[in-house]
Amino acid sequence: MDHQELALVLGNAIEQQDFDSALEQVKGMRPVDIADILAEISPALAWRLLDKIPDRAGIFSYLDIDVQMELAREYPRGNLARLIGEMPSDERADLYKQLDQEQKDALLPALAQAERENIRKLASYSEGTAGALMTSDYATLDGNMNVHEALAALRREAPDAETIYHAYVIDAQRKLVGVVSLRALILAAPGTLMHSLMISNPIHSQVNDDQEDVAKTIARYDLIALPIVDENGAIVGIVTHDDAMDVMSEEATDDFHKSGGVSTMIGNMKDVSIRVLYKKRVFWLVLLVFGNLFSGAGIAHFEDVIAANIVLVFFLPLLVDSGGNAGSQSATLMVRALATGEVVMRDWFSLLGREALVALCLGGTMAVAISLVGYWRGDTTVAIILAMSMMCVVLIGCVIGMSLPFILNKMGFDPASASAPLITSVCDASGVVIYLFIASQFLSLT
Amino acid sequence: MDHQELALVLGNAIEQQDFDSALEQVKGMRPVDIADILAEISPALAWRLLDKIPDRAGIFSYLDIDVQMELAREYPRGNLARLIGEMPSDERADLYKQLDQEQKDALLPALAQAERENIRKLASYSEGTAGALMTSDYATLDGNMNVHEALAALRREAPDAETIYHAYVIDAQRKLVGVVSLRALILAAPGTLMHSLMISNPIHSQVNDDQEDVAKTIARYDLIALPIVDENGAIVGIVTHDDAMDVMSEEATDDFHKSGGVSTMIGNMKDVSIRVLYKKRVFWLVLLVFGNLFSGAGIAHFEDVIAANIVLVFFLPLLVDSGGNAGSQSATLMVRALATGEVVMRDWFSLLGREALVALCLGGTMAVAISLVGYWRGDTTVAIILAMSMMCVVLIGCVIGMSLPFILNKMGFDPASASAPLITSVCDASGVVIYLFIASQFLSLT
Repeated sequence: MDHQELALVLGNAIEQQDFDSALEQVKGMRPVDIADILAEISPALAWRLLDKIPDRAGIFSYLDIDVQMELAREYPRGNLARLIGEMPSDERADLYKQLDQEQKDALLPALAQAERENIRKLASYSEGTAGALMTSDYATLDGNMNVHEALAALRREAPDAETIYHAYVIDAQRKLVGVVSLRALILAAPGTLMHSLMISNPIHSQVNDDQEDVAKTIARYDLIALPIVDENGAIVGIVTHDDAMDVMSEEATDDFHKSGGVSTMIGNMKDVSIRVLYKKRVFWLVLLVFGNLFSGAGIAHFEDVIAANIVLVFFLPLLVDSGGNAGSQSATLMVRALATGEVVMRDWFSLLGREALVALCLGGTMAVAISLVGYWRGDTTVAIILAMSMMCVVLIGCVIGMSLPFILNKMGFDPASASAPLITSVCDASGVVIYLFIASQFLSLT
Repeated sequence: MDHQELALVLGNAIEQQDFDSALEQVKGMRPVDIADILAEISPALAWRLLDKIPDRAGIFSYLDIDVQMELAREYPRGNLARLIGEMPSDERADLYKQLDQEQKDALLPALAQAERENIRKLASYSEGTAGALMTSDYATLDGNMNVHEALAALRREAPDAETIYHAYVIDAQRKLVGVVSLRALILAAPGTLMHSLMISNPIHSQVNDDQEDVAKTIARYDLIALPIVDENGAIVGIVTHDDAMDVMSEEATDDFHKSGGVSTMIGNMKDVSIRVLYKKRVFWLVLLVFGNLFSGAGIAHFEDVIAANIVLVFFLPLLVDSGGNAGSQSATLMVRALATGEVVMRDWFSLLGREALVALCLGGTMAVAISLVGYWRGDTTVAIILAMSMMCVVLIGCVIGMSLPFILNKMGFDPASASAPLITSVCDASGVVIYLFIASQFLSLT
């Protein structure tokens, strides 16, 4: 049976409250697949199954935080404390942060002293930092251990450590001095000391570093885990490759949404409420309504020219859109290049020159296309007006689209806020003015 | 010294051709950091340094493929063959694919028989599949080995395997029957057989599966490596977590670019040529010029109404943009939700209902905003026309924006092609018609 079939059989068994056969199914399944099924059934049924599975904490950790909260409300407090005690330290700190004060106060006394402190500590780091992402379940070694002793230590630490493939060598002050891979350990002679086997000065991040930088570091150095140190250089946690992958996906979604003019979205698109969707979207839309009044003002200024030459209106949306389209292309390229680190602030000037050349080529091509249409709908004058306007509009659109992400970055905003709607509105207003200005010059001559 | 300082010192040493001190610096540096510096200096200097470093193949593998090609041209063929022999199998197959026929013919005879076949085989999979992504440097075990024998086997395989943290248990036909983690191995009693220690029926992908699905599987199951099997279930390679991370980042960039109306971009934004940038962008822009003619046609149809009421032009860009903005927000949310797998095709109908409700709320808010401006610039009739148009334009924009990614997906295109420029143009044309139609109805009454 493949995993989808397993899931179906399990779902049916649970629905029919046939827990013996459900348990039989669970044996062949991965925790994340079991969690997906539990999220679909009632909390009471979910608990009846979970209570029978040895790795319930692992499965519970894979549930969305909302589902965890829902389940937590339906579970006797003593059992819940035991479950939370067994969860990976990073996942349980995330759950703890979501509990209200009353739940926290009820939960903490039921936990062991060490767990209590661990939760409080991990929950204290601000969202989006390495501290909030890391787990404290890592393996450490002493520099004076030999390979034989180190392997024995790792065997002891294995049940609680998220990974033992990298172990961190620390001194008496828990200062991070090196990293030893399990690969190196099993290849080395039994008597080799960790001090000589370890890689000194290992790649690490600070506890307050941005989670995006942490993920980039893990990707750059192909790490399984990245050690996180405090201001004294003492190791306080590790971020594992799978968490880094989740962060990269989240940050990409975040940038994608921002560039489409949606504020940061939290949660799954399928489950998000109408109220949240409205709230995340209305800001930009209303702002842009007022931003667009500048286009209107531009038009008002040239009302006489338009009234005398209604044919100009025919090309208005087209010209104005072209600038916005070219500009949002430029912005798209720059936003993503800044996000992946391909491009940095100091590249702005050299990129601007190239962008201007590309814009001239693009504008030239589009000018040819539109002047043909202009000649057909109007006359040579209209064709010339359109060609000239198109060149200017595309050039200015590209320069705006390329520069805005840099300017926003410089001002401390996320460059992804240079969204398509924003670029479009800014380019539209300049497009209207350029087009009608050029038109008024030519038409007053004739 | 931190890594940036190291990089500076190394760069200087190479420039001054002081290779002894350069080598001293290299000792403390990671391969990817060394590769970054080599990419900046002349091929001749790069080779003089590389030739002195034992892990030159590892460093060379971190270079961009363009830089690898440039270096390959400057290197004696025999040395190059030796270097390529030492490279990880996935990286060298990628390089091989880029060589021209003459280079390939010169290179192959210099390689050992096994390497030659390996390169040919790996290079034969189409781009974007698991086969093109995987490495053949994985570790295998026999089910009848005990722990002691398995550890000895892994020690032998370690120098050539990309990871030994997961080893794959195969039968006589190389069929994948299980996976054993090194963690389980070092925790188990020495006499335990692999058959009882392994996890049977491990998560795996097919050699022709899409690389995006491979990356998603690795992320979902938090894997260090995913085994890839052929049509007979025999293992042919593994994809490691770091390659999965690169794929996710690439695919996110790709979607991001498409949604901004740029065709798939290859390579680094800083290095890409004007010609490539022009080619990747001109298609959409010119297409949209002609698409926008529909807006123009709408305007032409209502020319009399406009001529009699020039005030309508004032609000034209605003109304038309609002539909496009709301629509591109919807498209943005859907494109990313489809990409991450949050939303699937069958969700379309239920999401449409919710989207319509959100659109009514958004449209209502914007209608209030614009009718105030309309009343100020015009009169009550204008205010009513604007409010009604805004509601319709936003509603239709959102429905188009939400549906287009699904329709494209259904038709076999990438949903990310529902780019902001495309949505904007489609919504613009409908916006023009809706606005001027409503206006003409009201104004003919008064």
